[in-house]
Amino acid sequence: MRPYELTAAAASDLIARKELSCEELTRSCLERISDRDPVVRAWTHVDPEQAIRHARELDRQPPRSPLHGIPFGIKDVIDTADLPTTHNSPIYIGHRVGRDAACVAVVRHSGGVILGKTDTVEFACAGRRALTRNPHNLAHTPGGSSSGSAAAVADLMCPLAFGTQTGGSLIRPASYTGIYAFKPTAGLVSREGAKMYSQTLDTIGSYGRSIADLRLVAGVFRLPQADEATGFDPDRLRIGVCRTPYWDRAEAAGRDALEFATRQLERAGVEIRSVELADDFGKLARAHEIIMHGEGRAAFLPEYLGHYERLHQDFRDHVENAKMITPRMMADAYDLAARCRAEFDRLFATGVDAILTLATPGVAPEGYHFTGDIIFTAFWTLLHVPALCVPAGPGENGLPIGIQLIGPRFGDLALLDVGEAVAPLLDVSPARHPVSG
Amino acid sequence: MRPYELTAAAASDLIARKELSCEELTRSCLERISDRDPVVRAWTHVDPEQAIRHARELDRQPPRSPLHGIPFGIKDVIDTADLPTTHNSPIYIGHRVGRDAACVAVVRHSGGVILGKTDTVEFACAGRRALTRNPHNLAHTPGGSSSGSAAAVADLMCPLAFGTQTGGSLIRPASYTGIYAFKPTAGLVSREGAKMYSQTLDTIGSYGRSIADLRLVAGVFRLPQADEATGFDPDRLRIGVCRTPYWDRAEAAGRDALEFATRQLERAGVEIRSVELADDFGKLARAHEIIMHGEGRAAFLPEYLGHYERLHQDFRDHVENAKMITPRMMADAYDLAARCRAEFDRLFATGVDAILTLATPGVAPEGYHFTGDIIFTAFWTLLHVPALCVPAGPGENGLPIGIQLIGPRFGDLALLDVGEAVAPLLDVSPARHPVSG
Repeated sequence: MRPYELTAAAASDLIARKELSCEELTRSCLERISDRDPVVRAWTHVDPEQAIRHARELDRQPPRSPLHGIPFGIKDVIDTADLPTTHNSPIYIGHRVGRDAACVAVVRHSGGVILGKTDTVEFACAGRRALTRNPHNLAHTPGGSSSGSAAAVADLMCPLAFGTQTGGSLIRPASYTGIYAFKPTAGLVSREGAKMYSQTLDTIGSYGRSIADLRLVAGVFRLPQADEATGFDPDRLRIGVCRTPYWDRAEAAGRDALEFATRQLERAGVEIRSVELADDFGKLARAHEIIMHGEGRAAFLPEYLGHYERLHQDFRDHVENAKMITPRMMADAYDLAARCRAEFDRLFATGVDAILTLATPGVAPEGYHFTGDIIFTAFWTLLHVPALCVPAGPGENGLPIGIQLIGPRFGDLALLDVGEAVAPLLDVSPARHPVSG
Repeated sequence: MRPYELTAAAASDLIARKELSCEELTRSCLERISDRDPVVRAWTHVDPEQAIRHARELDRQPPRSPLHGIPFGIKDVIDTADLPTTHNSPIYIGHRVGRDAACVAVVRHSGGVILGKTDTVEFACAGRRALTRNPHNLAHTPGGSSSGSAAAVADLMCPLAFGTQTGGSLIRPASYTGIYAFKPTAGLVSREGAKMYSQTLDTIGSYGRSIADLRLVAGVFRLPQADEATGFDPDRLRIGVCRTPYWDRAEAAGRDALEFATRQLERAGVEIRSVELADDFGKLARAHEIIMHGEGRAAFLPEYLGHYERLHQDFRDHVENAKMITPRMMADAYDLAARCRAEFDRLFATGVDAILTLATPGVAPEGYHFTGDIIFTAFWTLLHVPALCVPAGPGENGLPIGIQLIGPRFGDLALLDVGEAVAPLLDVSPARHPVSG
């Protein structure tokens, strides 16, 4: 097995035992990038010399954390002190900020190797799409907006990467590329230094190729243990299956994935319950849209005033309030979301360890312009709950698909435990390995 | 009258009429800084040549907005492309970020002159205090954390300045220094590029020396008109006087200010109602503390991991959760705040145009270490409502004091209208003019 094929967790063990050097792992990932990125196009900027120099320094130091020496891809809407941050916007070509975003600083101070920046939908929002292709079928999108980060991890170019989610930008590309993604409870990972779109919704999350990988990242961010966490009994796991109020938007592949996952868990003796969400939850998709576009007015005002000509019409529309969102609509959307958050948490007191639900309506669409439907991710983002994407089942036409596990707010670590218990039952797709991986 | 004595609104008129040049105004403010800052110590960095060069350029351009040529002070937790941003932290001495914060970019693109950076409590939070003194009595604090911005505007060193508020960092210094401050509804002004402390609470606000000044700033940020805004009848203004559930924390000067303001409005024929907040509002101060400290764990993790030795114990305490805040406490605090937000908005449907309440318990305390009590500002910040500080009455011992006007979420422009109507009745203090102004 070549180093680039290792999961972050496996590489971390080898580095800790001195059976693999940080430099070897970094070089292996850089070679993989050099082989594969001409077709996958996941990266906007890689500085091989800088990464190797950093890895060498780490080889001379005592390990700072289990992330010591692990290469990271950083979505190009997240600031890095030593690489450009372009947001895939013509306004910010070659732009360098002299400071790491909070999440990058945490990884760097924990011994992670910042390998490069990954392509993104413009400002993680709209406008220009990433050039990235889906490694499982180059004619398909990897999803967006964290297109490059997901494709890079899926195509074995780096073991870990950061993405962001405002609607479905983290979980959806994970489902489409057959990898794992974790979106923590809102507020637990600082978003400082990531381009702001919506202050209610923007969330930093991570990609890996196993639950153990995502645990490494959760560890350095010191996600707290929920008060109620008594640990579930893995032999008596209780999962609530939720079709959501948006089930009619699911395609066959999405429905099949949820059915496959449910069946696999049932066979393994997991207690399955059907969970229906109250009517108010059916209004969350619209509330999400209102808040995202409403808050986006403030987000893009600086570029609107200073760089109108180079600002894509999509962002001008945000500032000009093309969707005609009123303050009353905003306040109502905030209040609805808050009521649903409290109600959703209460669901877990009724004997459910996690919710199992769709991640995407189906597999990755063909082409690069449409990066997929956010319907099965957006309202969970608005609920501020932790969400975990796990590859599930065969997918369709060689393209993978994932499902989502959802926990209550602050149930992050328990959700990763549930993921660990169920992932071996679900992650059995032959489509897990990319085209020439 | 020398140019530095002009309010922003007065200077804007003169510049528009070509009776004052941007350069003259900037030079006048710089001279005032040079005269006064050795004792007031409001500024951490001023670059006179750069400011003058910028003002000259603006004199050659058509006006971009009513802010054209108006000098701004920027609190030193807010990024500026051409000046250092230090957060008053030894970690960031001389640190330069190659990008303006969103609020700075909006002002710059609107023709504002970025005059310099103003002193702040470390990271707008705790740790080191600003060196700034209260211009009305140099032995007293100007309040914090936006100490420098408030003192600079109060002492006529610049007509406008940005502050931030997470607890009481914007409104409190305005009350203590006898100036006007406006904290908009949460989410209407992008906080991108301001040091993050609490993602629920951090808000950018502005200081000026009249309501008209604050309107200029609100204008360039395009604050929306609330749906319900039919405009109030200035001859039939209805004000709800609210002692808040924390009335027992008010000192004589604070109680007197509220009484004075109430009496002045009554005399002018304003309809006064007493407003009692429900019991839940009495729990908001604690909910605010929980959210601020709970979210602060993530905010300071990068500095904790990378610069532990130079990080003040106050921030280590945040990361180490010295206040033992649990996830359950966080979720409960979020839910309580959300319920109160909806309930508070409903109060305005009962025939009240704005709430009149205390801004601070009393006048500025003596000394520089304690920057004052946040009890009368913190819970309004948590409610996400717009808040306006207006100087009110005689104050105490030569020190001014302000009161607060509060509107419903998104009632920003209507609140400024109310402020315009009542400010002439309240802003009559002989303590308005600084020591040697």
